[in-house]
Amino acid sequence: MDKLIKRIDELNSPTVVGLDPTLKMIPTYLKKQEIERNGETALAASRMLYEYNKIIIDSVCDLTPAVKPQVAMYERYGADGVKAYVDTIEYAKSKGLYVIGDIKRGDIGSTAEAYASHLEGTSIDDKHIDPWKEDSVTLNPYMGSDGITPFIDACKNADKDCFILVKTSNPSGSEVQDLIIQESGIPIYEHVGNMVSKWGESTIGECGYSRVGAVVGATQKVGLELREKMPHTFFLVPGYGAQGAGGKDLKGFFDADGRGCIVNSSRGIIAFWQKDERYSEENVGDAARDALVAMNQDLREAL
Amino acid sequence: MDKLIKRIDELNSPTVVGLDPTLKMIPTYLKKQEIERNGETALAASRMLYEYNKIIIDSVCDLTPAVKPQVAMYERYGADGVKAYVDTIEYAKSKGLYVIGDIKRGDIGSTAEAYASHLEGTSIDDKHIDPWKEDSVTLNPYMGSDGITPFIDACKNADKDCFILVKTSNPSGSEVQDLIIQESGIPIYEHVGNMVSKWGESTIGECGYSRVGAVVGATQKVGLELREKMPHTFFLVPGYGAQGAGGKDLKGFFDADGRGCIVNSSRGIIAFWQKDERYSEENVGDAARDALVAMNQDLREAL
Repeated sequence: MDKLIKRIDELNSPTVVGLDPTLKMIPTYLKKQEIERNGETALAASRMLYEYNKIIIDSVCDLTPAVKPQVAMYERYGADGVKAYVDTIEYAKSKGLYVIGDIKRGDIGSTAEAYASHLEGTSIDDKHIDPWKEDSVTLNPYMGSDGITPFIDACKNADKDCFILVKTSNPSGSEVQDLIIQESGIPIYEHVGNMVSKWGESTIGECGYSRVGAVVGATQKVGLELREKMPHTFFLVPGYGAQGAGGKDLKGFFDADGRGCIVNSSRGIIAFWQKDERYSEENVGDAARDALVAMNQDLREAL
Repeated sequence: MDKLIKRIDELNSPTVVGLDPTLKMIPTYLKKQEIERNGETALAASRMLYEYNKIIIDSVCDLTPAVKPQVAMYERYGADGVKAYVDTIEYAKSKGLYVIGDIKRGDIGSTAEAYASHLEGTSIDDKHIDPWKEDSVTLNPYMGSDGITPFIDACKNADKDCFILVKTSNPSGSEVQDLIIQESGIPIYEHVGNMVSKWGESTIGECGYSRVGAVVGATQKVGLELREKMPHTFFLVPGYGAQGAGGKDLKGFFDADGRGCIVNSSRGIIAFWQKDERYSEENVGDAARDALVAMNQDLREAL
């Protein structure tokens, strides 16, 4: 996690821009251009997403340490979409950004090993290939250690990180995550938090945080509670802006040095041009940049 | 789920062949052919998987109702791999097979909607496209109803099904799934089982099973218990063969009419040529067919 934390410090910006584009955000000129090239196809839609992301990335890459493409938005268009996801990662990395692949994968044994190629690539005979290139990925803990260990090995091998779902920001997350365990009297999310701390133990870096981070939704109470219980676990926090939380709700997620957490905003940044009448489709990038500056100021004031 | 159940009845075979190929299974001649065409690339590896799957599919399509490609094995090779996954689905469907996409996705709101394109496709302006084409997919319940509802809608819209992880067959699955809930005194997996029953309620078909199935690992005790508690939920059962369970362990997963469950075997079928000295790389398909015949006989005897 050191790479990410150092970049956050350099920019004084604990932000990550979620790259979750949909066709509703794409400017008319861009839509027209891609449909003229490839018709109303999955390929055309995929290239729209990629070109849109390039505009966003160019506008924010000197202000934010990281981007978080949500793979579902690309998977929607099949293999062409996945290529746009990978191209987005490559472009973001070429601009110095740390990339969190929001893939929420979770499976067991040999399957988890196959998924771990997201972080460390794979081999064909003796040749190593790296078809994904994320710096970190999000993972689902429902299947326990078997599904996580291959990723931790990959993190160590390839100087990468991962973020495990602990407490999600959606209303129905509580249906499973908030259940109280009979034996320990703690909720499932805290139990998973303990697992995450343990999984990370052997990977704590020079900044004091492990390679195994946690996804913790932007609820003030939970942030305070888990920050104290998980002192070496870096938090990825969704739920800012479009999903409701503001900077003042997030103070508890940070440690005493103002570290320990990176806050995601997706639509609130990348679709800001549609939400404020000062902007039009000609200045998608300016709108994203302005929204990010405002978000960063909001977070700094809260700290 | 009617489509699957009817095909199981027609073939008298409650089996599904897991298409989880790895390069270690690929015959030398096939590896050589694809490397000659495309070098040691992700594309070459992806085409090996696809060509291998075609051999397996041709050999088993008149004996099994379904195949279950595990997307991780294809994702390992990036976008090229995903194309091989989609091509495999199309080929399997052209041979009359029902396809369970083992994708174990789970996310919220608009993200879950994007993932639901696996089942119902998506739109570009007014044009509908269908880039995945699975008949059903596996899903992860950790994020609750928000992550599942868009898939249930897709199932209804497109005459498809889904299978939710309830109790997985891996040893560490117990770390979360077996925890006892304070309020109800039942384990998490049973709580999730109850959620699955409820999610399926409005989708029960003429065979008496809903469109929302459950993944339940092949442990005798759990099978008996959940079969009774979830009378309208169809079970997808991994863990046969390579993972340890035999037909006699699985009787409890079926209902009184010998329905209600489909049993998966992956490596035990598709890599059987490497496990029995009667076979060589020249008869990969014969080996798979023989292994499937034996599995089917084992299951029928148990019933």
